[in-house]
Amino acid sequence: MRTDGRQNRDLRPFAVTLHPNKYAEGSVLIEAGNTKVLCTASVEERVPPFLKGQGKGWVTAEYSMLPRATHTRNQRESAKGKLTGRTMEIQRLIGRALRSVVNLHALGERTITLDCDVLQADGGTRTTSITGAYIALALAIHKLSETTSFEKYPLTDYLASVSVGVIQEQPVVDLNYEEDSKAKVDMNVVMTGAGAFVEVQGTGEEAPFSRAEFDEMLSLADEGIRQLIEMQKQTLGTAGERIGGGKK
Amino acid sequence: MRTDGRQNRDLRPFAVTLHPNKYAEGSVLIEAGNTKVLCTASVEERVPPFLKGQGKGWVTAEYSMLPRATHTRNQRESAKGKLTGRTMEIQRLIGRALRSVVNLHALGERTITLDCDVLQADGGTRTTSITGAYIALALAIHKLSETTSFEKYPLTDYLASVSVGVIQEQPVVDLNYEEDSKAKVDMNVVMTGAGAFVEVQGTGEEAPFSRAEFDEMLSLADEGIRQLIEMQKQTLGTAGERIGGGKK
Amino acid sequence: MRTDGRQNRDLRPFAVTLHPNKYAEGSVLIEAGNTKVLCTASVEERVPPFLKGQGKGWVTAEYSMLPRATHTRNQRESAKGKLTGRTMEIQRLIGRALRSVVNLHALGERTITLDCDVLQADGGTRTTSITGAYIALALAIHKLSETTSFEKYPLTDYLASVSVGVIQEQPVVDLNYEEDSKAKVDMNVVMTGAGAFVEVQGTGEEAPFSRAEFDEMLSLADEGIRQLIEMQKQTLGTAGERIGGGKK
Amino acid sequence: MRTDGRQNRDLRPFAVTLHPNKYAEGSVLIEAGNTKVLCTASVEERVPPFLKGQGKGWVTAEYSMLPRATHTRNQRESAKGKLTGRTMEIQRLIGRALRSVVNLHALGERTITLDCDVLQADGGTRTTSITGAYIALALAIHKLSETTSFEKYPLTDYLASVSVGVIQEQPVVDLNYEEDSKAKVDMNVVMTGAGAFVEVQGTGEEAPFSRAEFDEMLSLADEGIRQLIEMQKQTLGTAGERIGGGKK
Amino acid sequence: MRTDGRQNRDLRPFAVTLHPNKYAEGSVLIEAGNTKVLCTASVEERVPPFLKGQGKGWVTAEYSMLPRATHTRNQRESAKGKLTGRTMEIQRLIGRALRSVVNLHALGERTITLDCDVLQADGGTRTTSITGAYIALALAIHKLSETTSFEKYPLTDYLASVSVGVIQEQPVVDLNYEEDSKAKVDMNVVMTGAGAFVEVQGTGEEAPFSRAEFDEMLSLADEGIRQLIEMQKQTLGTAGERIGGGKK
Amino acid sequence: MRTDGRQNRDLRPFAVTLHPNKYAEGSVLIEAGNTKVLCTASVEERVPPFLKGQGKGWVTAEYSMLPRATHTRNQRESAKGKLTGRTMEIQRLIGRALRSVVNLHALGERTITLDCDVLQADGGTRTTSITGAYIALALAIHKLSETTSFEKYPLTDYLASVSVGVIQEQPVVDLNYEEDSKAKVDMNVVMTGAGAFVEVQGTGEEAPFSRAEFDEMLSLADEGIRQLIEMQKQTLGTAGERIGGGKK
Repeated sequence: MRTDGRQNRDLRPFAVTLHPNKYAEGSVLIEAGNTKVLCTASVEERVPPFLKGQGKGWVTAEYSMLPRATHTRNQRESAKGKLTGRTMEIQRLIGRALRSVVNLHALGERTITLDCDVLQADGGTRTTSITGAYIALALAIHKLSETTSFEKYPLTDYLASVSVGVIQEQPVVDLNYEEDSKAKVDMNVVMTGAGAFVEVQGTGEEAPFSRAEFDEMLSLADEGIRQLIEMQKQTLGTAGERIGGGKK
Repeated sequence: MRTDGRQNRDLRPFAVTLHPNKYAEGSVLIEAGNTKVLCTASVEERVPPFLKGQGKGWVTAEYSMLPRATHTRNQRESAKGKLTGRTMEIQRLIGRALRSVVNLHALGERTITLDCDVLQADGGTRTTSITGAYIALALAIHKLSETTSFEKYPLTDYLASVSVGVIQEQPVVDLNYEEDSKAKVDMNVVMTGAGAFVEVQGTGEEAPFSRAEFDEMLSLADEGIRQLIEMQKQTLGTAGERIGGGKK
Repeated sequence: MRTDGRQNRDLRPFAVTLHPNKYAEGSVLIEAGNTKVLCTASVEERVPPFLKGQGKGWVTAEYSMLPRATHTRNQRESAKGKLTGRTMEIQRLIGRALRSVVNLHALGERTITLDCDVLQADGGTRTTSITGAYIALALAIHKLSETTSFEKYPLTDYLASVSVGVIQEQPVVDLNYEEDSKAKVDMNVVMTGAGAFVEVQGTGEEAPFSRAEFDEMLSLADEGIRQLIEMQKQTLGTAGERIGGGKK
Repeated sequence: MRTDGRQNRDLRPFAVTLHPNKYAEGSVLIEAGNTKVLCTASVEERVPPFLKGQGKGWVTAEYSMLPRATHTRNQRESAKGKLTGRTMEIQRLIGRALRSVVNLHALGERTITLDCDVLQADGGTRTTSITGAYIALALAIHKLSETTSFEKYPLTDYLASVSVGVIQEQPVVDLNYEEDSKAKVDMNVVMTGAGAFVEVQGTGEEAPFSRAEFDEMLSLADEGIRQLIEMQKQTLGTAGERIGGGKK
Repeated sequence: MRTDGRQNRDLRPFAVTLHPNKYAEGSVLIEAGNTKVLCTASVEERVPPFLKGQGKGWVTAEYSMLPRATHTRNQRESAKGKLTGRTMEIQRLIGRALRSVVNLHALGERTITLDCDVLQADGGTRTTSITGAYIALALAIHKLSETTSFEKYPLTDYLASVSVGVIQEQPVVDLNYEEDSKAKVDMNVVMTGAGAFVEVQGTGEEAPFSRAEFDEMLSLADEGIRQLIEMQKQTLGTAGERIGGGKK
Repeated sequence: MRTDGRQNRDLRPFAVTLHPNKYAEGSVLIEAGNTKVLCTASVEERVPPFLKGQGKGWVTAEYSMLPRATHTRNQRESAKGKLTGRTMEIQRLIGRALRSVVNLHALGERTITLDCDVLQADGGTRTTSITGAYIALALAIHKLSETTSFEKYPLTDYLASVSVGVIQEQPVVDLNYEEDSKAKVDMNVVMTGAGAFVEVQGTGEEAPFSRAEFDEMLSLADEGIRQLIEMQKQTLGTAGERIGGGKK
């Protein structure tokens, strides 16, 4: 049994609050145990310079932790004057993952920026950000669809993410911070509603892992992500009705 | 009557949630109308280099707005690589104001950093930050007092802040964003529980103001701040009992 | 009596040298006691991006201290790679104050930049910069008026600034550095020729101040600024004749 | 058949030049097809601040591309004033991968920095950097062992890396730049001499991938890495004799 | 006799490898003793903003040392976030020197950037960079001439550079690192094929030098540069045939 | 005859004002025609890290132009966030030149920083800065000598600098801005009181120059610098008495 009483295959209790922000086109406060992330989707009617005039849109993400999201206070990246490698890596991952289920041509020449601000961190902030940002993105596209008649609906599938790891030879899902510090392998998986892989990032810095361990972790992740996508469907309700209607 | 139905002397409804953050030594989510600021107090057992070995502590503040705290999305200062002048000005103001009611010698060689992160902005973010950060600071010092025997209690008085302005020749208190955009004068006032001024910052960029207008604004601010300090007393309850027990 | 023999209401001796710079459209070297600031006004026939195509102009300011303007040498901000919060705060103040007496529509699509470079600092550098920059600005607009026929004269009033403070319970005006270090309250006031307030910035970090002290300080500032504006009128002579001819 | 005539499971021809740099403690020029990376290992008798006094060492990596390593010239990161997210991500990956086969306690309080400078890029620069940096690291540790008597040899295993992807439904190994641009999945795998996984990073931004595709890619990577490790053994010869003698 | 057995007037052995880079329009690896510099010429069909629409082109250079080009490892300038003064000085020198033999009007509206990356440094990196960058530039212009019919050939003369110094009262040419550290005077000279001076930069920080010493050094430099230009002519062969055909 | 009526060998009228700054250990305002530079010398009782504990001191320089020192306004380097290559090159030159006449061991463990701030620029700012900074340095060392008993006087000789160039085949000395723009060769020379060369930096970007031209320019520079050093001697008077008393 795990320190917080969960079985190896148990996700932490999650909670989703819709529309915590009155200005954003889509917003959600997502909680996975003690990890809390505020995700907002901002729609702008322009694209970055490298996409100008190509008739397609863009989806991108930014990630940040509040200084006291963690046990001890961290210096702000704005005060340091630059983003850390960790932040860049995470926000590139979130953006890439979300784009895998967006038909950018269908979206048209607009940019949707997902801001994931971690209010409190207890492990799994990048995977929780992806799962939450997806909902904010879906809300924003649904809202767009009320004023724009999309020939194809720009969102091609559901998408969620979870972490898995190996602790004392046991594969476990959705690690909290304490577990994360003890895990010999750390893996983040992103999957679509159709059950396909979008990102698999496994790291065995402390100790390399075998193919068998790898397979077990993938299965745990698959099972956890299915539950998260079920939660997304219930949360979005009719706002998610047209998702997957058009393919890429 | 004002656009949101308030009288000139009415504050917006405010709400305070204590301890929204499980790690910080003190934390509060403060709401003034649609303005929402998350304030955390972080205690560290060290002081900045310029204070080393002087037997006194330090209180400082940092201020930031989430990118979509506002009607349209703003670029992150961490992405720009530097703080704007506005941010620097505000965080210097918050830190200075709070230090005016802290006996730094009584605090001892430790630093308390107040992080004010604006989750949603609808005018008055700097004054709301001061009022909220004061509560977080008081909670952190109260918590410190449980393990440290302070000869003098480091907090010498209560402290709160409000904005005032002149709109269509009428002085009004606690302006929301829409009012702020129309005001010809913009003034921020910080006062102590004893009714003394700590900061008075009035700006008439659009149109200079007369001494009579100035006096009316100060009176409105005084009245509003008294209400805010009453709210602080009720919120802190016994955690505020020793405030003002020792002077600077 | 004050350390330099002045009465509480006495300004320091001031001196103004016109046209110290042969290239700038307006320039002045202003001295208030040992504080010396070189102010230049540069006119450019373009406006910042946020004003493009609006048929109005812009007035802005930059402030800097030479490294050895002070008792001990300070590192250059260019070497640090960024402006300090203090510098940003001051240059925002100078720009805002000057714009309060400029009719930007009357100015037309051009930018006037006031550079205030402190050659020697002995207290009051920001207020002296405002008083001096105003003269440089007036010279530049006068020069512009020789080649441009302004329907309304862009300068709507005179403008000057002085500092006031409280030392040993006595309100005093135009503090030098030594007095500034001892003052419990520090206030900067900017007023127009018509006697209206443009900026009032009072700070009681060391000790809060009462409304009575505040009123006394404002009166001292008012009296001092009237003298400074008188000096500006004499200095500008016929170059100031059209000031205030057109309102905002 | 692939554009350069290879079968799906064929690596590109590779070449290794030992000691191209006369100052570095270990150095190698590695070529995989037209991709050329100069790897140097620099040993310093100190550790970063976060490791001071813990009796263990550190291994870290930096990665950079010369401006004209690519088809068109890229701006230098030194001229931009900051590292891109891509560079940070890659150098974090290289460092993490190498540390997985180093016993940092056995290494003692010293830092080895691996610099991977890409002279020419034709796909696979990050995996080629890992494979080459490993050799430079092994040379440097071997050289250290001539003057230091290690109780345990700090290098616990061999380590190499290769990319795999899916092009037109076919899994292929060691993609060149042209192939990389057309691949729907892009995966980088790092493995040890013992055949365990250290890093698996698969991305399906263009199109998600199935578990079956994933398994096929892993098998191709496994086969390719075994060949690369064989090459490393032959290249290092007696300099590699003690590798794996002591475990972590 | 010098530490490496050379006479005072002897250059170090040099070697030139043409086309080490398959993408660049011109490239060369130049070695002078143990100093090795990779020079690439990149042609772009655009000019910097300050030259837009003037019907002329631009030639510029960038210089960088790999971190372990030297005895001990240097921090990367990209990691520092800025170029050192030394780097800026050197790349300005290289660009200026090359432009002295280019007819920018004949070149037309295009930019040629010479990247000089020092792989290994043993003194004379800036002079070797100039000599090598000239060859890369000549190759690129020759290649351009195959598709562009230049009315005047843009390259007006040959150009090379060498260092000279005074060690123990003896003037010597082409100093290696060890000699450089002991030299009381350090001088870099750039000359054209016609024997005219383009740059003379002599520095006597350790000890001023006399006119007689100066004259002797100039003569040594002249002799050395003639040999280098002879080498350039042989290396370029027919690719250099049209050089000097048209004047500036 | 030159545009301002001078003969080829004529310097511009120069003027020196001693002690324009009341805080600096040495200060001078130097004017060469319309070029005006404020030079201050700041003495600090510490040395940079690379010199710690070696029993010797350091002399360094910083150079900056006020934004409106020139015909059109330039952006501040502090606002850009970095120094330009030109600024770095110039301040390195000034520091190097001054150190050539300072016995750093005799100076002891202290740093003297020369700040050269160009108030108005009309050509020759770097050479004028050197000539002026030397006087400020001499004043500071003289002042130091009143409280420190130097065994050897740290200043070993006088030092001044002038520019020379070739305009319409005529070598001329001390070029103003207009001449500088037309010159085909631009050379800066620094010499000691003993007539030895410290720096010779000649650049023929527009057109290479012959040895004969070079010799003529050197002779003109020599003659000009002798006059400048004579002026320095008269200006310093008894404050210069001990200069050259001790050798390096």
